[in-house]
Amino acid sequence: MNTKMIRYILGKMLGVEAVLLLLPALVSFIYQEISGIYFLIPAAILAALYLLHGRKKPEKSNIYGKEGMIIVSLAWILWSLFGALPFTLSGYIPNYLDAFFETVSGFTTTGSSILRDVEILPHGMTFWRSFTHWIGGMGVLVFVMVLTTLDKKNSMYLMRAEVPGPEKDKLVPKAMSTARILYGMYFAMTAIEVILLLFGGMNLFDSLIHSFGTAGTGGFSNYGASVGHFDSAYIDGVITTFMILFGINFNLYFVLLLGDGKSVWKNEELRAYLLIIATSITVITVNISSQYQSILSAFRYAAFQVASIITTTGYATADFDLWPMFSKCILLSLMFIGACASSTGGGIKVSRFLIGLKCIKREILQMVHPKSVSIIRVNGKKVGSDVLRIIFIYLVAYIGIIIGSVLIVSLDNFDFATTFSSVMATLNNIGPGISKVGPTGNFADFSPLSKLVFCVDMLAGRLEIFPFLMLFTVSAWRKKF
Amino acid sequence: MNTKMIRYILGKMLGVEAVLLLLPALVSFIYQEISGIYFLIPAAILAALYLLHGRKKPEKSNIYGKEGMIIVSLAWILWSLFGALPFTLSGYIPNYLDAFFETVSGFTTTGSSILRDVEILPHGMTFWRSFTHWIGGMGVLVFVMVLTTLDKKNSMYLMRAEVPGPEKDKLVPKAMSTARILYGMYFAMTAIEVILLLFGGMNLFDSLIHSFGTAGTGGFSNYGASVGHFDSAYIDGVITTFMILFGINFNLYFVLLLGDGKSVWKNEELRAYLLIIATSITVITVNISSQYQSILSAFRYAAFQVASIITTTGYATADFDLWPMFSKCILLSLMFIGACASSTGGGIKVSRFLIGLKCIKREILQMVHPKSVSIIRVNGKKVGSDVLRIIFIYLVAYIGIIIGSVLIVSLDNFDFATTFSSVMATLNNIGPGISKVGPTGNFADFSPLSKLVFCVDMLAGRLEIFPFLMLFTVSAWRKKF
Repeated sequence: MNTKMIRYILGKMLGVEAVLLLLPALVSFIYQEISGIYFLIPAAILAALYLLHGRKKPEKSNIYGKEGMIIVSLAWILWSLFGALPFTLSGYIPNYLDAFFETVSGFTTTGSSILRDVEILPHGMTFWRSFTHWIGGMGVLVFVMVLTTLDKKNSMYLMRAEVPGPEKDKLVPKAMSTARILYGMYFAMTAIEVILLLFGGMNLFDSLIHSFGTAGTGGFSNYGASVGHFDSAYIDGVITTFMILFGINFNLYFVLLLGDGKSVWKNEELRAYLLIIATSITVITVNISSQYQSILSAFRYAAFQVASIITTTGYATADFDLWPMFSKCILLSLMFIGACASSTGGGIKVSRFLIGLKCIKREILQMVHPKSVSIIRVNGKKVGSDVLRIIFIYLVAYIGIIIGSVLIVSLDNFDFATTFSSVMATLNNIGPGISKVGPTGNFADFSPLSKLVFCVDMLAGRLEIFPFLMLFTVSAWRKKF
Repeated sequence: MNTKMIRYILGKMLGVEAVLLLLPALVSFIYQEISGIYFLIPAAILAALYLLHGRKKPEKSNIYGKEGMIIVSLAWILWSLFGALPFTLSGYIPNYLDAFFETVSGFTTTGSSILRDVEILPHGMTFWRSFTHWIGGMGVLVFVMVLTTLDKKNSMYLMRAEVPGPEKDKLVPKAMSTARILYGMYFAMTAIEVILLLFGGMNLFDSLIHSFGTAGTGGFSNYGASVGHFDSAYIDGVITTFMILFGINFNLYFVLLLGDGKSVWKNEELRAYLLIIATSITVITVNISSQYQSILSAFRYAAFQVASIITTTGYATADFDLWPMFSKCILLSLMFIGACASSTGGGIKVSRFLIGLKCIKREILQMVHPKSVSIIRVNGKKVGSDVLRIIFIYLVAYIGIIIGSVLIVSLDNFDFATTFSSVMATLNNIGPGISKVGPTGNFADFSPLSKLVFCVDMLAGRLEIFPFLMLFTVSAWRKKF
């Protein structure tokens, strides 16, 4: 274990957070809010830590997957620990655990909140809260890679732990330049959304807040009624569209940029993802139509909520807790499924389900024709037994974490829907669940223990479980093996 | 596809059911109930079908796994279709779908009921209802094998589809004699339970009913309050013990019979199973102690309910819906886990979880020490990649069936706890769930569509999903391939 190198890279990353904290400080300054100084205190501490650890590169600079995973996990935790300070120092979230929860929820692009009233926050705090979504969206590491310099061999290992989802083949070669392009697209798409929202009559501040939340598939809003506050079909439409776009595998945009539209359109995961969205919207529209004046308005709310849940964003324009159980169960199923691999979204991911379904089909075929040999292909490429093993283990760990979390959270003695959906909402990085943690509710009333469990779940969900599990493995920290 | 052979074996099996139906008819006769004649009508039809199809063995008698699975699936459905007739003909369950539900629930050893009041049934009907549990317990096929004659090569294929759980190595050689021994033990253990219950002051009829339900891990009682009716610590203790015993891998009894107590005690699944039971009982006892007069009485109810749920029996002595959410969530987790492989219980099975956990452990170890090669062993034996693949596919299909079933059942617009737990209770062959389908509730109010889904879930759960899925595969029915 190259602990010196871990310290060095983490030092660099803390330096980046110091710089990032200047942005909300600037926002506070513009709005003449005195609370802006509370961004400068952690920024100063972080800068000091950077100067201490992040300046001198160790001689032995080679790191492996193990170190990469530990760096990523620790980075997320350290960023959240420091990122929570402004909330507590300023007194807007006096309890530090609550502030940590809110910041973890931000960086992991979850969007669950312990705030009973988000509208009391000053502009600077609101900006920082939503900015964490945007930073978290493409991953702390991709971000850091663009801004700092690491030799190519190392950055690949970091990418492996960082980029969400099972597919990463396109990203591995030339990790640095790929990261720059991906991040450029992320930036450009966010900018386009800001502009489109400005056209809809939103002010610049609100546009930024909601574009950050959409891009990171996070879901923090600066209004208690979330996007429902604007009550505008145009704004709903723009955000719905961009939520769906940010839920697509970013490699496909890369491929599209290279002019290969055909292979984008033939991508099986994309097709499945769009099919699931279209079906869910249609079915829910019919199911809830009696609750709305027109079928068009039912469609508008169905589309927004479906896009928000499957991409694990978590914005709301309707209190879906009041919808029929059928619509609620569709949304709950979408929570399981999640967005595409290598997108900013969370959840189990469409591609894993796709591979699972293909395995079932093959198994039945082999039972019927025992002599036949069939290979599982996704997008024409063979899916190896290695991938299947990893998905299996992921699934078992996922179920295990759900059971463990539900058991601990159930100690708070809330109703079953609250207990179960709060775990689902955090582990899948969605944000709101149903019942007490529904779109109009929040996570304030849970015990400190439950809040800690939710923090662990949010981090485990964002890091696709394994890098995070490794952090707690004793033997990973041994110097030799 | 050897359809002639399928027809022949199914014919034989229907003949067996004809004979079995004479037993409840005899019970009706003893209690001088006129409704006894309604057992004789389906018995006559079944006898006729036997004479038509089950007498002359086809010349081409070789069958394979595919045929075996289809036979098992169809046998369970046909037995349920005919076994439901007495309830409807007699007018005690006038709706045939409801009667079918009740019979499927019986044969699959689920124990879910659509009866609002079980105490109005005459003795003959009650006997038949519980007798289906006992028949279902060790599997229609093992039963048939003991009574009829099939050449050895064929019966192995039938066993493969029939014996629940991933482990079947010990059973394959000499399937016929193994089946006789297993069935003998099943019979002996049931008899011992009957005698012990008689000692507790239960009458013979009640003893039989509750021993049938325990042996099959079914859970039908002839009292609305289930085993709670007797309000006896002795009876609770006997049934708790036997539920746990019937949840153990039957192969272990076989090994014990051969005098190899050491390898029984070293069996990892058994240890995990007993550890889970002990832990759950302890934790729930503490959690519910304030609701009972003494810690001893809390222990008594905790032990009974834990044993009932993990073995997927479904008897109740307490309304656990009134317990704290923590205890309820422990019970819900036990519903997932289920009993041991090759027992009469349902659920995912302890061994599958054990293998899954070992996979996670190995995966983390390999991330930490990339050069290490470790093999997964259960009871010292290597678990091949084939087994992992099958468990993975099983898990995906299991999750898929849960999502699909919950979506359809949610159309009935009951609360989330009812919707979710009713699917869990039927797919895992448990019986009661929580909320409306809790220990004091029933399945009467669901729509016909939902009841049909529950029937499918009960059958899929009992047949470990795949033989049942194959039944609906078009290409399985093609004559040539």
